[in-house]
Amino acid sequence: MSQPWVPFDDRGLSYGDGVFETILLCQGRPMLWALHVKRLLEGCRRLAIDPPDESALAATWQAPPGGEWEVLKIIVTRGSGGRGYAVPEVATPRLMSRRVPFQPDPSAWRQGVGVRICSLRLARQPCLAGIKHLNRLENVLARQEWQTPAYREGLLADSHDMVVEATSMNLFWQQEGRLMTPALDQCGVAGTLRAGLIEAQHVVPAQLALDELAAVNRLWLANSVQGVWPISALWSSEGACLRRWEPPQDDPLQAVAHPLLGYPATP
Amino acid sequence: MSQPWVPFDDRGLSYGDGVFETILLCQGRPMLWALHVKRLLEGCRRLAIDPPDESALAATWQAPPGGEWEVLKIIVTRGSGGRGYAVPEVATPRLMSRRVPFQPDPSAWRQGVGVRICSLRLARQPCLAGIKHLNRLENVLARQEWQTPAYREGLLADSHDMVVEATSMNLFWQQEGRLMTPALDQCGVAGTLRAGLIEAQHVVPAQLALDELAAVNRLWLANSVQGVWPISALWSSEGACLRRWEPPQDDPLQAVAHPLLGYPATP
Repeated sequence: MSQPWVPFDDRGLSYGDGVFETILLCQGRPMLWALHVKRLLEGCRRLAIDPPDESALAATWQAPPGGEWEVLKIIVTRGSGGRGYAVPEVATPRLMSRRVPFQPDPSAWRQGVGVRICSLRLARQPCLAGIKHLNRLENVLARQEWQTPAYREGLLADSHDMVVEATSMNLFWQQEGRLMTPALDQCGVAGTLRAGLIEAQHVVPAQLALDELAAVNRLWLANSVQGVWPISALWSSEGACLRRWEPPQDDPLQAVAHPLLGYPATP
Repeated sequence: MSQPWVPFDDRGLSYGDGVFETILLCQGRPMLWALHVKRLLEGCRRLAIDPPDESALAATWQAPPGGEWEVLKIIVTRGSGGRGYAVPEVATPRLMSRRVPFQPDPSAWRQGVGVRICSLRLARQPCLAGIKHLNRLENVLARQEWQTPAYREGLLADSHDMVVEATSMNLFWQQEGRLMTPALDQCGVAGTLRAGLIEAQHVVPAQLALDELAAVNRLWLANSVQGVWPISALWSSEGACLRRWEPPQDDPLQAVAHPLLGYPATP
């Protein structure tokens, strides 16, 4: 599959000076499109990058579907140039995209996944918190901590041992009948599925310390591509099993989240 | 000038998954080459990127000189691929470079520069501290805080209000006759000129709080391209002048640093 290229002096390559989105296409239609556009524009605003036109963004998926499910990745960089870190007076941002086939994982929806707690602690940087910028070395380093497929994801806490997210998914928990998710004002990526669930008042942002994690009624990971994975087992960084949960019969998070993605509410 | 290109799926672009070096060439010869190679290899080791051969690195400058002074920029990325943040089982790193003409600034050496304190605070992330990785959004955001040429650089403190560096230079200070520089174990880029000065025991790593900054005997900024700039005026984020210093007659930092770069010890 052909793909776009960027020159050496593109600031996305030089400094990670840009943002990206990873979008589920169902029969060619983008799921949660408005929320992806909203986050991308918010990222551009926070970094002071000239945002792309919404019509240019929409053109990234206006080709015939390449299958039932695809993933569309969009990158927007500030473009080329500038003297060192100083941004050019007139920057010409680059908008690039690529579509690849995708298969959701119904067994993860039904049986849940094993998850470990990463050793790496996310740094707190409110200037970059929430947006999906291109500085993702913390995620890359955290994902390198394990190889075994027994762990489908790794949970990340911040330098204050507050739970934040997983390397590429948001975290949700249930306590006293309420669905909650970490607030992400210090670090982490505010996922679009999470945003949709908060907007619809299904989920409330809250705080959760690492040492409270094993005591919650139920835990999930979710993002706008994979949908909702119940966590069936939680492991420490050292490989000790901290807790197991039975996958729920009627999953309250899947019931509200999956319809937003074209996935079955009761998989 | 022609330049290399990278594909959309290069992890340097996607995640800032790589390292870079910016090297002064004097009549085609790289200054502090061994220290640049050492830091680049240390960066690769910390990120678990297969390091390039030293012969491939040396080939980046083995062409006829393009002038008295040039700057050589080298980027090494992990290369293409992987599933999300997970690194590919066999990654093929990309090594790229580009040379551009350069003019040092003798008036900054002689008269010193005005510098302001940035509002942005660097996040503390020991996993990434010291190396020159491609996740540089904090530097880009800090550099966007001012436009006026009255400030040649911006000083950065961390989330604990400890002084770290400038956006693209290291900081040095003199107190009780000793030359010191921030320790950089929590954040910041450990410059090669700084490394050379520490190695030769001209400079000692130490701690300096933001509120101690205006009280030191003397302050400098320095890197391996620009050499040593005495700070002649220090400004707060709000534009208040906190202190002025007379440029020294016999600058003790230039005396030891400039010979490492082929610059005059007494400019």
